[in-house]
Amino acid sequence: MCRAGQDNFCHAFPTLTYGGIDREDGTTTLGGYSREYVVRDRFAYPLPEGLDPAAAAPLLCAGITVWEPLRALGVGPGSRVAVAGLGGLGHLAVKLAVALGADTSVISRSPGKADDARRLGARAVIVSTDPEQMAAARDRFDVVIDTISAPHDLGPYLRLVALDGTLSHLGHLGPVTVETADLLIGRKKLSSAGSGGRPATAAMLAFCADKRIAADIEILPSARVHEALERLRRNDVRYRFVLDMSDLD
Amino acid sequence: MCRAGQDNFCHAFPTLTYGGIDREDGTTTLGGYSREYVVRDRFAYPLPEGLDPAAAAPLLCAGITVWEPLRALGVGPGSRVAVAGLGGLGHLAVKLAVALGADTSVISRSPGKADDARRLGARAVIVSTDPEQMAAARDRFDVVIDTISAPHDLGPYLRLVALDGTLSHLGHLGPVTVETADLLIGRKKLSSAGSGGRPATAAMLAFCADKRIAADIEILPSARVHEALERLRRNDVRYRFVLDMSDLD
Repeated sequence: MCRAGQDNFCHAFPTLTYGGIDREDGTTTLGGYSREYVVRDRFAYPLPEGLDPAAAAPLLCAGITVWEPLRALGVGPGSRVAVAGLGGLGHLAVKLAVALGADTSVISRSPGKADDARRLGARAVIVSTDPEQMAAARDRFDVVIDTISAPHDLGPYLRLVALDGTLSHLGHLGPVTVETADLLIGRKKLSSAGSGGRPATAAMLAFCADKRIAADIEILPSARVHEALERLRRNDVRYRFVLDMSDLD
Repeated sequence: MCRAGQDNFCHAFPTLTYGGIDREDGTTTLGGYSREYVVRDRFAYPLPEGLDPAAAAPLLCAGITVWEPLRALGVGPGSRVAVAGLGGLGHLAVKLAVALGADTSVISRSPGKADDARRLGARAVIVSTDPEQMAAARDRFDVVIDTISAPHDLGPYLRLVALDGTLSHLGHLGPVTVETADLLIGRKKLSSAGSGGRPATAAMLAFCADKRIAADIEILPSARVHEALERLRRNDVRYRFVLDMSDLD
């Protein structure tokens, strides 16, 4: 996997940025909650000119997590892409799919996010609680990027996938159950992805700099981390918090 | 789906050859158990010269069911293909993958089918009950064709799929549960397929005639159908029974 540029899929399990085990000293990694961070140079990326450091920060997890499947699935001009769930992952999936030239739709539980979806570049919004809208979109999308962060039935989303298309299930870990018939009828594929390899991460940063894409963020001083976590729990952020650590100096 | 040449994925559900509902008169279809059969001409295929009618018969279900995913997944020279389960579907999957130029392996519960697998053209046999052999084959195959006809854990087979590769789950209908991590690590895909469309069926028949491929069969007079079903239940056939209906004349 490292030879394929996918250290993130390391057979010995990757070292997670936070909540993981440091390979050198066995301590728990703290990621962005760290005051300082020692990292092997080949896992550091130069920030391309023109990208705001705060708005670029979420690209290095949410951004690359949606970028790799979009690229691996060949999304480009002419592709029909739907993004289910409009949060941290979802809003970046929309921006990146649109910038790659795809005809991009958003699938959302409520019609409330329609304005935001269109502002991000989506051509259409499908309300997932409206059976008529869901039925009308059957077999329509080459790629469905599912960023819904709670366990949910994948059947309704698989039925939106076109012949030989793929549902990439990104928002939730854990077991998923699907009816074989939902894969069989239309030879559809269920996949997932997470984080990314070094070549793809560098390519995504260059693409984002070129297309002026970054995350929509809200910056809070690090001392207000509890407020950020509490609002995150209520899903009250559009679309990523960034902690400004300068108050620790 | 019909415009895409995939009538088998009809939104109104296809008319199954047997155990289905006839669209004209509402009776239950009897398929190969029928003494005579009226079929719309565009759903009939000329038998190419050089194909034995009895050995070609199973191509029109088992053959096309494995052919479509092999073709849709781009299997050809250089592809690494594994076939799990060596029965009616599996032995045709091996023959077709080998004839398409793929480096083909068989995954089987017991080493007893190794000779058969090699005779069919497989380069290697992996014994699925041997954890060392399974671990050594991790991430090795671009395509795994899973023809195992009983419910089973897909995890061990997904772990044999290479980066961006696909497990096509063909042998069993019903719900399947997979760990998202088994899809995420390696961006693997789970798919299925069944039967086939008219253009692909015609192409498969031409390919089989050209490569002299047909099913390995045992012919029984139709009066011995119960014996065939009983032996089928014990998995005692290599690899398909064909009923000779001439005893009904």
